[in-house]
Amino acid sequence: MQTARLFDHLKAACGWEWNRYTRHDFVRQLGAGTLADSAFRHYLQQDYLFLLHFARAYALAGYKSDTLADMRAAAATFSALVDTEMKLHVRYCAGWGLTEVEMEALPEDGPTVAYTRFVLDRGMAGDLLDLHVALAPCIVGYAEIGRWLDEDPATLRDGNPYADWIAMYAGPDYQNVAEAAIENLDSLMARRGGEGRMDSLVRTFRAATELEVAFWQMGLNRA
Amino acid sequence: MQTARLFDHLKAACGWEWNRYTRHDFVRQLGAGTLADSAFRHYLQQDYLFLLHFARAYALAGYKSDTLADMRAAAATFSALVDTEMKLHVRYCAGWGLTEVEMEALPEDGPTVAYTRFVLDRGMAGDLLDLHVALAPCIVGYAEIGRWLDEDPATLRDGNPYADWIAMYAGPDYQNVAEAAIENLDSLMARRGGEGRMDSLVRTFRAATELEVAFWQMGLNRA
Amino acid sequence: MQTARLFDHLKAACGWEWNRYTRHDFVRQLGAGTLADSAFRHYLQQDYLFLLHFARAYALAGYKSDTLADMRAAAATFSALVDTEMKLHVRYCAGWGLTEVEMEALPEDGPTVAYTRFVLDRGMAGDLLDLHVALAPCIVGYAEIGRWLDEDPATLRDGNPYADWIAMYAGPDYQNVAEAAIENLDSLMARRGGEGRMDSLVRTFRAATELEVAFWQMGLNRA
Amino acid sequence: MQTARLFDHLKAACGWEWNRYTRHDFVRQLGAGTLADSAFRHYLQQDYLFLLHFARAYALAGYKSDTLADMRAAAATFSALVDTEMKLHVRYCAGWGLTEVEMEALPEDGPTVAYTRFVLDRGMAGDLLDLHVALAPCIVGYAEIGRWLDEDPATLRDGNPYADWIAMYAGPDYQNVAEAAIENLDSLMARRGGEGRMDSLVRTFRAATELEVAFWQMGLNRA
Repeated sequence: MQTARLFDHLKAACGWEWNRYTRHDFVRQLGAGTLADSAFRHYLQQDYLFLLHFARAYALAGYKSDTLADMRAAAATFSALVDTEMKLHVRYCAGWGLTEVEMEALPEDGPTVAYTRFVLDRGMAGDLLDLHVALAPCIVGYAEIGRWLDEDPATLRDGNPYADWIAMYAGPDYQNVAEAAIENLDSLMARRGGEGRMDSLVRTFRAATELEVAFWQMGLNRA
Repeated sequence: MQTARLFDHLKAACGWEWNRYTRHDFVRQLGAGTLADSAFRHYLQQDYLFLLHFARAYALAGYKSDTLADMRAAAATFSALVDTEMKLHVRYCAGWGLTEVEMEALPEDGPTVAYTRFVLDRGMAGDLLDLHVALAPCIVGYAEIGRWLDEDPATLRDGNPYADWIAMYAGPDYQNVAEAAIENLDSLMARRGGEGRMDSLVRTFRAATELEVAFWQMGLNRA
Repeated sequence: MQTARLFDHLKAACGWEWNRYTRHDFVRQLGAGTLADSAFRHYLQQDYLFLLHFARAYALAGYKSDTLADMRAAAATFSALVDTEMKLHVRYCAGWGLTEVEMEALPEDGPTVAYTRFVLDRGMAGDLLDLHVALAPCIVGYAEIGRWLDEDPATLRDGNPYADWIAMYAGPDYQNVAEAAIENLDSLMARRGGEGRMDSLVRTFRAATELEVAFWQMGLNRA
Repeated sequence: MQTARLFDHLKAACGWEWNRYTRHDFVRQLGAGTLADSAFRHYLQQDYLFLLHFARAYALAGYKSDTLADMRAAAATFSALVDTEMKLHVRYCAGWGLTEVEMEALPEDGPTVAYTRFVLDRGMAGDLLDLHVALAPCIVGYAEIGRWLDEDPATLRDGNPYADWIAMYAGPDYQNVAEAAIENLDSLMARRGGEGRMDSLVRTFRAATELEVAFWQMGLNRA
């Protein structure tokens, strides 16, 4: 591991919050297969609404790009989210008895509003680096969670109703997405960063990580 | 009452949420003088952080203005907020033992993030009308709450620690601010609205009203 | 022709400017095959830089979308522009002796800056309808120009060096793109419009059309 | 002179463009008192329209601010522009036979659109530092032009119809405004900058300086 990575620095600076997020009870219960159906369903429903605004954040990244390469990366993720990912999510949710029509009509829960709009506002008020730092806890955190659950002896292997979820985030496709996001942060830091920005970037990363904690907790509160 | 007012329409369309907001237990306890100190202090602290982003929303209104009149109105409110209002708030908070240095350093609570960033994102993604509709529950709601508490027989008159707060929002200065906001909505509706927008405007108003409910509840949760 | 179409109304309200744009000498000389090489090359170079910001406008449309359908439409155009269209443009420019590396390094000419940033700023300050009205003169105008040149007896058929350009914009693929843009304006007008907005929309459309005139003139000035 | 200043670096990196801007024939003729009335009137008219969007840029700075100090600075300039400065400009224009009603109704000329929207888009897509770098050629350049004309032996002292204009920008009030802008750039660079950003900042500064050249030329073209 290359210690000069911006992501590693951000994670180390927010170790306590990062641990609360990636080792949250929602995550542990998911691994153990003990998470209440109702908690997971609420999470899935809110995640549908979350994805809509998450996609908007990548559209914003397209608007904010200076280079054709950055624009193409933003376009690829934006398109993947509104086309492939939304459809995969809807199909997965169908397996849990949730329909797209129902999910579209649901109100956003407070933590969904807080996280999505924080990212969008931070990205709009700041620059492309601020935006991607605000997105990183989600993108990279899920990869770490997937990997950890996949390797953790406490994870229920047989008959875990959440096995597909774990496999998706632990799988090579998603791990590569997260790795690319980490590399992109370094590229942006080289082009737009500097020592003086670090405090502000850490504040953004910490706030986004806390909002992820609240997102898990929102699910658990419905257990 | 002039029934054609946009604000009246929005409020009527969200009657249930509006009632939960303007008659919230936080508000009732404030009127009765029974609200826990700790609840009010948490509210004041978060309101300080709220005001910073609320001011940004009026700066955004300045950016979004088409006419010099709209720009001047936005500039007046933006300046009033960051100069006069922030200082008044800090002075008032000092009476409750809170210092500006402490408040600046506090993390934003989830409901503070949710409400402020929702307004900013709705305003940025939409137009000046969307922005002002998202702001209206706060501006106009506080005037209605102040007036109601001022007139309610249940309100404690003597020795109510929150008497100043009630008097401020019930007073003519704040009532005029709210009245001007209501008129501004009608002006914007005439210039930018249409029947087809009503559903979307109601959704924005409802979401903002719900986020106000959550803001009161956040205070009460610290009681 | 359905006279209630927003686009028809806008075009009729700006008839004089629309005529100056769609029947500009640059266009006439292109049809006659008499346009100077140098004029066309400067146009192609600036159009490359134009396309980058034009793509950003569709990313902005993605950010500004309220519905998944609008987001998908924005994502499809944004992706098509930065992937397919940019590559087609680069290949076409290669036929005129222009390389992508050279075009990337060129400074934007005044009219390129004016048009692209006007659209982006109008779209950011206003809403999705303002944005698409600002984009319409380009999208729909080129289809009309292509069709007109294709049908005009004055157009040189044999040996016209600009025959491919005309064929592309006169062809069914591009005509369908323009038709979809016209329909989208009506959909947005129904959802977000109203009589009161018409003056402002006409001003936006007129300004964008004038900026298209200046874009052609910029090419001709290099003849 | 402190060579580490960001502004000095930007100016040095764009020496050729800066010279074309600050020593433009429009400026020289203004100093010599030989500038055609019609050129100056067109400049004043477009400067009125320019100021409206320039004010929006400071509102945008307010939206983009992270700190209360930055917000207060933005609010002060935004308010000063839409209140004091617009009124002073209108009064000055009245002396040249131009009324506010007429100026409001004029279409923006291409170079006015290009410069104002470039600044707004650069500021929105980038961060507060990008925005202030895009604004700097205007703010600081006018101070340098005023000072130079005031000191230049070639400047007509007696009976120069543009003496008031020169005196305003050469005067201590405006010089202090420019000095504060230079200091603010250094503050933002320390907080948000880094070596990797320099190329991009220079490109922004150069583009804005070129757009100032075009703004002078627009006036001269009406001579």
